[in-house]
Amino acid sequence: MINQFGIEILEYIEGIGELEAFRGIKKESGIINTVPVKIKSNNSQKVFYSIEEILDKLDLKDGICVSFHHHLRNGDKVLNFIMESLAKRGIKDIMLAPSSVFPVHEPLVEHIMSGCVTKITSSYISGPVAKAISEGKLKYPAILTTHGGRPALIESGKIHIDIAFVAAASSDSMGNINGINGKSAFGTLGYAVADAEYADTTVVITDNLVDYPNAPIDISQIYTDYVLVVDSIGDPSGIVAGTTRITKDPLGLKIAALTSKLIFHSGYFKNGMSFQTGAGGTSLAVAAELAKLMQEKNIKGSFASGGTNSFIVDMLNKNLFEYIFDTQCFDLAAVESYKSNPKHLFMSCSMYTNPNRKGTVADMLDIMILGATEIDKDFNVNVITGSDGYIMGGSGGHSDTAAGAKLSIVVTNLIKTRIPIVKEKITTITTPGESIDVLVTEYGIAINPLRKDIIEKLKNTNLPIVEISELIKTAEKICGIPKEIKFDEKIVALVMYRDGTIIDTVRKVL
Amino acid sequence: MINQFGIEILEYIEGIGELEAFRGIKKESGIINTVPVKIKSNNSQKVFYSIEEILDKLDLKDGICVSFHHHLRNGDKVLNFIMESLAKRGIKDIMLAPSSVFPVHEPLVEHIMSGCVTKITSSYISGPVAKAISEGKLKYPAILTTHGGRPALIESGKIHIDIAFVAAASSDSMGNINGINGKSAFGTLGYAVADAEYADTTVVITDNLVDYPNAPIDISQIYTDYVLVVDSIGDPSGIVAGTTRITKDPLGLKIAALTSKLIFHSGYFKNGMSFQTGAGGTSLAVAAELAKLMQEKNIKGSFASGGTNSFIVDMLNKNLFEYIFDTQCFDLAAVESYKSNPKHLFMSCSMYTNPNRKGTVADMLDIMILGATEIDKDFNVNVITGSDGYIMGGSGGHSDTAAGAKLSIVVTNLIKTRIPIVKEKITTITTPGESIDVLVTEYGIAINPLRKDIIEKLKNTNLPIVEISELIKTAEKICGIPKEIKFDEKIVALVMYRDGTIIDTVRKVL
Repeated sequence: MINQFGIEILEYIEGIGELEAFRGIKKESGIINTVPVKIKSNNSQKVFYSIEEILDKLDLKDGICVSFHHHLRNGDKVLNFIMESLAKRGIKDIMLAPSSVFPVHEPLVEHIMSGCVTKITSSYISGPVAKAISEGKLKYPAILTTHGGRPALIESGKIHIDIAFVAAASSDSMGNINGINGKSAFGTLGYAVADAEYADTTVVITDNLVDYPNAPIDISQIYTDYVLVVDSIGDPSGIVAGTTRITKDPLGLKIAALTSKLIFHSGYFKNGMSFQTGAGGTSLAVAAELAKLMQEKNIKGSFASGGTNSFIVDMLNKNLFEYIFDTQCFDLAAVESYKSNPKHLFMSCSMYTNPNRKGTVADMLDIMILGATEIDKDFNVNVITGSDGYIMGGSGGHSDTAAGAKLSIVVTNLIKTRIPIVKEKITTITTPGESIDVLVTEYGIAINPLRKDIIEKLKNTNLPIVEISELIKTAEKICGIPKEIKFDEKIVALVMYRDGTIIDTVRKVL
Repeated sequence: MINQFGIEILEYIEGIGELEAFRGIKKESGIINTVPVKIKSNNSQKVFYSIEEILDKLDLKDGICVSFHHHLRNGDKVLNFIMESLAKRGIKDIMLAPSSVFPVHEPLVEHIMSGCVTKITSSYISGPVAKAISEGKLKYPAILTTHGGRPALIESGKIHIDIAFVAAASSDSMGNINGINGKSAFGTLGYAVADAEYADTTVVITDNLVDYPNAPIDISQIYTDYVLVVDSIGDPSGIVAGTTRITKDPLGLKIAALTSKLIFHSGYFKNGMSFQTGAGGTSLAVAAELAKLMQEKNIKGSFASGGTNSFIVDMLNKNLFEYIFDTQCFDLAAVESYKSNPKHLFMSCSMYTNPNRKGTVADMLDIMILGATEIDKDFNVNVITGSDGYIMGGSGGHSDTAAGAKLSIVVTNLIKTRIPIVKEKITTITTPGESIDVLVTEYGIAINPLRKDIIEKLKNTNLPIVEISELIKTAEKICGIPKEIKFDEKIVALVMYRDGTIIDTVRKVL
């Protein structure tokens, strides 16, 4: 098959099944049936102090699917620990379905090499596991979903989770859990909801067993089969690390200032506006600029959504937004705010952006600020592979929010370390250009020709509007025409759009 | 078939299907599969101002099942309004599945007579509808479920709801709802959760459409298909009416004092204890007595659960409990507390007491105070039919909490208006005696012989412990042996225990 972008998609892949080619964004998903869920009543002992005792109770066999959430990010100890236990038991052909994979999960490479793990599906994969996949070490192609696509697959039964392992900062004896109380506090549990609700068996893992009842309750005891108490679920310094620093790069700051002006003139800057931004340095600079502008113009928004960080929390506290909808907390300020401010609301990943659901928060977004590793002449964006062709991330909520928001803006330097970001053709298509409205670079702003209304709105401003082809030419002038990366034939990953169709494939690096 | 109590249960009833006879309380429900749910993505307009426009979009046909929740109690305007609209469209053979039916729902009798409604399933039915059912006016036997059994039936697909109509005190344009903000505030939405999650179509009805997002969110937009805005969903005076007044009857107060002493000596009176009480006058007096005792002895409990009222709220505010778990608010104090106190927690009915789920709050209960219309020599309780044989209520959470709590205590006068409550044989078995531990009357305390541990604990106290047979004799001495009520052959209602088996039948009154 050939998909909308002329990319060849196999109709069937062994170990994966039949594939459907991406044919453009559907406005609605139509009618979907959720899958029956096996529930086993349990009013007796749920708490155990040894994973072995719990594993003894489970129907472990080759080919099972196990899932994890990524709220502990690069501080996570749970996935490695559990996978080591499963590997020790000699379980083979495991399908691993974590919501994201981080560098800390390096021990997985060994399990991939041994045949313990032969399939991985996730919304974001970075570090040594991404490298191993790119090098063709995983037996079957990895499936790279979106944040919204993942619960859609789980809820419709296309991913059947045998055991969901859900790390919790606190749990009571029945498995009422949250992510805010305890030494390993990480914030909301938004990404774990579909796992807990739809897995055959849900095992909570906590290092903070508290008196019944544990509150607030992000995930209820009615979904919990067992509670495993361990010494530590994560390294706090890794849990809330890194990403939420604003850029100091003058070009990044220039882009942020331009973006803020663009928003001001876009028609979406008004009372009741809603906003989300990624956690990249430039995206955060946009949040800072927007906050200034909102204060200056006395504008109050309805909600900010997404992964939350101190910049967004500041905006809530300054009354620039009425609410935050939060699937994950990126830093301590976000954790604290979620814990103490009733206007900082929990949001499951399905509520955030599952395309099968009856309207999501992402669909209510006015303005979305997105990053890009590459963006092409048709505004298609890559956030999966780097300039060397290696997998280094994933869509996360990129495609989801781009599709949902009324105004989706990609902010990026035209060139990074002498490599053009804006280019004729990109390595991997993550997000279709039809869902990207504007690109802001330090060399000017390109508006997607599909958005005639925005072109019209901005034509009498002094904003530096350019054609995207001009930006590509400028980049080529500075860096030369980038050489296309050569890949092996072998497909190492399938890029699955939020509707379950295949939008691109990633091939083995040479 | 003959069930555990020697009651004949038909194997099949036309219009109802195959029946299973009650054979004693099962400790666990085993493995259950939830039913697939049809979801239709909807990011476009959900809000309508006319029920006719919404009905035009629905697949209305004879035989559909429609559901309602009872949080507006006797102030509810929604059920009557919707049923009138459906009747006007000539829909026949509707299966009505409200969580409870109140006197205000009298217009239903007309729909029963016309054949618009031919089946009713509910956990509590009072007033003219109960009378009409007892008089044999409903075409098929009504199914009287328990609060926990109802979501179990819905989630397992044994009740398939075509359209759930969910009244909300406030909703935004996407159908995020709660019951606390607005002129028709009624408190939590615990009983509506399974309906909203499992219905083919969920229609929110509100008289308070607010800006997006509406928070707090008891039920998320991902379950809402349409939002109907009306002038009024209920009459505030009926919403929080009546039941939560403490008894002034000296006998009731004596029973409450005895019960409090019993609790003190039971072994369950200690730090971390959990407690629930019904909303009857004597039950409330027990709460008042218990509060005094807890203060006196400096005891702090973990949680109080159930329908909540001002007495329970007072206990939370006095720090006698750490949390309240709430499925429904009985009075304004409860509504206010739920709205403002983060220790007053939401609880879906499934979390409260669905026997299929992985451990419920009711299963964590230490002490449960229950009422009774009648109680027999084996501690079997009737809360469904009155002394005249008419249906006048239902189990609600009676059987559920009796089964879950470690110490379930029935409090009742031995005799009411010269009619014995404690008697050899009762009219209708709602709750099996094996789940009732103690009966407290003004003539003494009877302990279920199955609870040897409690008998042992109390034998050296000065509590007036008696055999239940003695209480029956005393009642007979005062009132004479009550005449058995004569019924017609026709079965008008099936009493379904929480596990879905038939524990008794109700026959037509003569």
